[in-house]
Amino acid sequence: MSSIKPSYVRHLDLKGGRIEMTHGAGGLASAQLIEEIFARHFTNDWLDEGHDGAVLPPMKRPIAVSCDAHVISPLFFPGGDIGRLAVCGTVNDVAMCGAKPLYIAASFILEEGFALSDLNKIVESMAKSAKESHVAIVTGDTKVVEKGHSDGIYISTTGIGEKITDFPISGKNARPGDVILISGSMGDHGTAILSKRENMSFLTEIESDTAPLNDLIEKVLSAVPDIHVLRDPTRGGLAATLNEIAHQSGVGIFLNEESIPVKPSVAAACEFLGLDPLFVANEGKVIVICNPNDAQKVLRIMKVHPHGRDAAIIGEVTQENAGFVEMKTLLGGRRSVDWLNGEQLPRIC
Amino acid sequence: MSSIKPSYVRHLDLKGGRIEMTHGAGGLASAQLIEEIFARHFTNDWLDEGHDGAVLPPMKRPIAVSCDAHVISPLFFPGGDIGRLAVCGTVNDVAMCGAKPLYIAASFILEEGFALSDLNKIVESMAKSAKESHVAIVTGDTKVVEKGHSDGIYISTTGIGEKITDFPISGKNARPGDVILISGSMGDHGTAILSKRENMSFLTEIESDTAPLNDLIEKVLSAVPDIHVLRDPTRGGLAATLNEIAHQSGVGIFLNEESIPVKPSVAAACEFLGLDPLFVANEGKVIVICNPNDAQKVLRIMKVHPHGRDAAIIGEVTQENAGFVEMKTLLGGRRSVDWLNGEQLPRIC
Repeated sequence: MSSIKPSYVRHLDLKGGRIEMTHGAGGLASAQLIEEIFARHFTNDWLDEGHDGAVLPPMKRPIAVSCDAHVISPLFFPGGDIGRLAVCGTVNDVAMCGAKPLYIAASFILEEGFALSDLNKIVESMAKSAKESHVAIVTGDTKVVEKGHSDGIYISTTGIGEKITDFPISGKNARPGDVILISGSMGDHGTAILSKRENMSFLTEIESDTAPLNDLIEKVLSAVPDIHVLRDPTRGGLAATLNEIAHQSGVGIFLNEESIPVKPSVAAACEFLGLDPLFVANEGKVIVICNPNDAQKVLRIMKVHPHGRDAAIIGEVTQENAGFVEMKTLLGGRRSVDWLNGEQLPRIC
Repeated sequence: MSSIKPSYVRHLDLKGGRIEMTHGAGGLASAQLIEEIFARHFTNDWLDEGHDGAVLPPMKRPIAVSCDAHVISPLFFPGGDIGRLAVCGTVNDVAMCGAKPLYIAASFILEEGFALSDLNKIVESMAKSAKESHVAIVTGDTKVVEKGHSDGIYISTTGIGEKITDFPISGKNARPGDVILISGSMGDHGTAILSKRENMSFLTEIESDTAPLNDLIEKVLSAVPDIHVLRDPTRGGLAATLNEIAHQSGVGIFLNEESIPVKPSVAAACEFLGLDPLFVANEGKVIVICNPNDAQKVLRIMKVHPHGRDAAIIGEVTQENAGFVEMKTLLGGRRSVDWLNGEQLPRIC
């Protein structure tokens, strides 16, 4: 992102202005957009260099990298916005590798006619979330497409971090006997998005849980370095993520429905919408799978953290039933928690 | 990208199939799309791990990172496609930091109804370009938006590499007396795109120059580590890039029009379209600014490289006229090469 502001340029109209095709053409208008919105909020030594890329210090430990495209609709929702989601989502994906997120690269696809005031709000929110997560947005790119070829704004983010422990942390690493923990209530994010989309104002307003989990994970890993699996149950929810782990590790997973935290308001909204909270996306929760001996310690650490107050032990890893997830239901029966087959919630992240 | 293929799934129809909303919902359809298109072409140890992120080896030298969103239209054009462009563009941006590109993270925004055959072609082209550039596509993400909210496919790529030299290479680093070189002819990419878009088949088909420049740059840097500026003249062309450098370094730039290589077919097309080739994007060219003593050596190295055959010395850096670019024209006059002010070519990368 370059830093060009010849004195003859009039400032952007951040109240009534809109994105024009010239803002993506690489000329003066692009430079001004970068200068007056992106560089202003994201300022740091790397970005201020004004090169097309950033040069970062060496990293002596293994490096974790993760990327995400964010196409959520609506852009602003109870508990967050696409900017906060983009930063937290990527921070979390890097943290799930057992790493400390340090840097983010962000690219923007803007639709012609998009309000500069909304862009400014979103970029400001990204800057705030980056500060909260202690990561720097070090490089970026902006493109503009014609009206009708986007939906306001899409944001792609790539996070880079340094591994904390030497233990392998992977979806392939769940072992029979391991305990499964979750850091809080299930289904908040997806339910908040859908409630907003469907204008369900008659329900209590449900807030997305969008939050950076790197601090919580760092605390867990400092106390218990030998964590087997870390995974955030985003798209497809707890069910899809646990099925993936069961498949990758070649193990069975057995859940206890009673112990899975779901907020009453979320449960009510899901019932109304015909959704199962276990299949609904979360954006501020982590699944931790570890040795049974470590489980209580992990639980205690999570419970004292602001993002882990409702943490719970929800099940265990089994040798039998490999590749599948089963659950003891509230009524005492057993049911299979299957893959999400059809479309559930498009564009929730 | 996870690797899930339960045996009951029918294979994707790569001939007649189309992208559906479920392909982005995080369930079984998403997993299948990843497995049968992305993972199949991009396969490498990091990606095959099936985690949401990749864990890479430590990097003991400074790390270069650059990202780009690609929204080019049309998706397939003479000399390339959006996939080749996404890989080469990011490889080049990392190389421009004076670094050796090693890894790419790629995220995809797909439009409902997009032909799977086109997606497959694009992903295959990315894999081929990655191989050609000796980089691995180590992690990714896929989202789907409803018909009418994208334009088939947008690709965001982030490249990561290791610095080659210890000399600072930056747009701030051009010094009076320095010599300016370019690796080949100007305007090929943008002119190819516009000719295709305008159906100008009566002209000779002009090909985009889309190509990875990392090998050429590595060879230049091994011979002459003290290069001052490396920059690829993409959006806004040679003119915008040199104006940026003049501004960032606080120097003047003086060009000799006669020495700037432009293919006759590109010059003719530009005249017809009312464009100036100096303002038209390139995707396989690099501007090198170095000490006058090193210029002939750099020129020789570029000229023996397949991507630098038409390399030329095109001008010099001056103390006077700081912040501006001036050119001695073919007719012997002098003219200012100004910033690109209006919209020239939207969606050329």
